Amino acid sequence: MSAREIEAAREIGAAFVAVGEADYPLRLQMIDDAPPLIAIRGHREVLAMPMVAIVGSRNASAAGVKITQQLTRGLGEAGFAIVSGLARGIDAAAHRASLTTGTVAVLAGGHDRVYPPEHVELLDAILAAGVALSEMPLGWEPRGRDFPRRNRLISGLSLGVVIVEAAKRSGSLITARLALEQGREVFAVPGSPLDPRAEGTNGLIKQGATPVTEIADIVAVLQPIMGLELPAREPEPEAGEPVQAVEPAPDERTRIIGLLSPTPVLIDDLVRLSQSSPRIVRTVLLELEIAGRLQRHGGGLVSLI
Amino acid sequence: MSAREIEAAREIGAAFVAVGEADYPLRLQMIDDAPPLIAIRGHREVLAMPMVAIVGSRNASAAGVKITQQLTRGLGEAGFAIVSGLARGIDAAAHRASLTTGTVAVLAGGHDRVYPPEHVELLDAILAAGVALSEMPLGWEPRGRDFPRRNRLISGLSLGVVIVEAAKRSGSLITARLALEQGREVFAVPGSPLDPRAEGTNGLIKQGATPVTEIADIVAVLQPIMGLELPAREPEPEAGEPVQAVEPAPDERTRIIGLLSPTPVLIDDLVRLSQSSPRIVRTVLLELEIAGRLQRHGGGLVSLI
Repeated sequence: MSAREIEAAREIGAAFVAVGEADYPLRLQMIDDAPPLIAIRGHREVLAMPMVAIVGSRNASAAGVKITQQLTRGLGEAGFAIVSGLARGIDAAAHRASLTTGTVAVLAGGHDRVYPPEHVELLDAILAAGVALSEMPLGWEPRGRDFPRRNRLISGLSLGVVIVEAAKRSGSLITARLALEQGREVFAVPGSPLDPRAEGTNGLIKQGATPVTEIADIVAVLQPIMGLELPAREPEPEAGEPVQAVEPAPDERTRIIGLLSPTPVLIDDLVRLSQSSPRIVRTVLLELEIAGRLQRHGGGLVSLI
Repeated sequence: MSAREIEAAREIGAAFVAVGEADYPLRLQMIDDAPPLIAIRGHREVLAMPMVAIVGSRNASAAGVKITQQLTRGLGEAGFAIVSGLARGIDAAAHRASLTTGTVAVLAGGHDRVYPPEHVELLDAILAAGVALSEMPLGWEPRGRDFPRRNRLISGLSLGVVIVEAAKRSGSLITARLALEQGREVFAVPGSPLDPRAEGTNGLIKQGATPVTEIADIVAVLQPIMGLELPAREPEPEAGEPVQAVEPAPDERTRIIGLLSPTPVLIDDLVRLSQSSPRIVRTVLLELEIAGRLQRHGGGLVSLI
C-alpha cells in the first residue's frame, strides 16, 4: 500500500485492518477467501456484535420494505447488528431500521466511491453509529462483478443471511449460495407464488432455507449456534505490538506445510493435526497462498499446487 | 338402514357402498376410522383415479382463487381427480376448475342437505361428470362438528392435501393434521407474512409441509408413491355375489383375534402375522368394533377393550 493511499484513507476516516488483527471480524476471518486487508470507516466495535445479514431486491415492494423493517427492528432489539449492501430497496430499508441498534454496510467499491450515489447521505447516517467496510482500494469504482464478490463478505460476516424479496437469478440468491458454502444459515421470507419478487425466496425455501415470518424463526436457529462454533479469540496483542507477533515458529510452519499435499484437506483438520492455533494455521496458509503454492477449493478445503 | 332410507337415496340417485366392496375408495378404506358405509352420487369411477385434495379458506383472496385454479388445472391435466369440501372460496374454485377432469365433493351432511345452500347448482355441475360422497344419512343437516369429521374423509381419499390459503386455527389446518395422522402428504402454498390468510400455510411449511408454487412441486412428491403403497385390489366378486363373500373363515377369525390384546398393535402387523388379506383383517376388526370389543388409537394402532 502506498503512503499516498494510507494518507487518503486517513482523510476520509478509513483505517486498514489485516487478517489476524484483533479488529478483523472473527467470522469473516474463517471464510476460505477472507480478504487479507479490509478498510473500515465508523464504529468498528459494531463488528464485534453478533451479525445477521438482511438482503433483497432493489426493486422492493412496499410489503417487502415493511417486513424488512419489522425483522430488522426485532433483530436489533435482540442484540444483533444488521449487515447489508447499501443497495436500493431491501438493503436500504434494513440499514435505516438498524441505524441506532447496529448496522454494517459492506461496499463493493472503495470508501470514496459510494454506490448508488444517492445513498451518500444514508451512508453518513450509517457511520454516525454503525460501520462501513470494503476490501477494495480507495478510488475503486465498483463494476458489475464486484457485487457478487462483495456479497461473500456480507454472508461471511454474519451468522445467517435473511433474504426478504428476490426474483429468480438475482444477486440476493448469489449471497444465499455463498452463505451456504460458508456454512452460514440461510433464511427466506415466503411470498405468494403470483409475486415474481417471491420466486427466489420461495425457491430457497424449497431447497431447505428456513422460512421466516417473524424474528422468532431466526433467533430460534441462531441462538444455539451463537458463540459455540467460534474458538475463543486469542488474547489481543499489546498496544503497539506488531501484527507479526503471530508469526509461526519455524518448526510450526514446517509441521503445517508437511500436512499439506496436492490432495485437498480441511483447514479444521490441519488445525487439529498440527496442534497449532487456527490463527497460526491461517497465517501459514496465507503465506503459501501469496507464494502461489496454495489452492483453495471451497468448503474449507485447501491443497498444495 | 330402513327400506325408506334406501328408497329416498334411490330417488336422489345415491347408492350405498360398504367397506370391502369393490367401489369403496381404496385409500379411504385404509384409514383408522374408515366409515363402514358411504353414500355416493354421480360418477363413481372418478373415485378410482389417483386423488389430491385442495382446500383452503372460505374467505379466499383473488390471488388464492387464481393459484387454486392454476394448481387444479395442472393436476387435472396430470390425471389427478381433485377432492374438496364444496365450501365457499378455495374449495369451490377447486371444484369449478376440475369439473371436466375429475372432481370429488365430500359432504358434511346428507346428500339432500347441501351446505352451503348456494352451492346446490355447483353440486349439480360436479355430478355431471364427477362425484359426491357422504358418510351421513339422508336428511342429516350438517352441524359445526360434522365438518372436521368430514375432513378426515377428504384427506383419507387423497394421496396428499394441498392447503392454499388458511388463517391460524382454520378448518383447513385440521385437514392438514388429519392428513399427517393418516400418512398423507401435506402441501402448502406460501404467502406474505403480512397476509393473515397465509399464516396457516406458512406455519405448515415451517412444520415441514412441502411448499408449493407450481404443480411440479406436488407431482414430484406424489409420483414416486403412486401405486406403490397400496396392495393390488383383490379380484372383484362375481356380479350378484354378496359382499359376505369376504367372510373370514372361522380359524382365520380366531387367529386374528388371538393376535390382539389390550396392548395396541399395528394393523399392518396383524396382516403380516395372521397371513390373512388386509381385507379379511379389516372385516374382523370391523366385527370386533361393532361388538364394542375394539379400540382404535390412531396411527394404524388397534387394541382389544
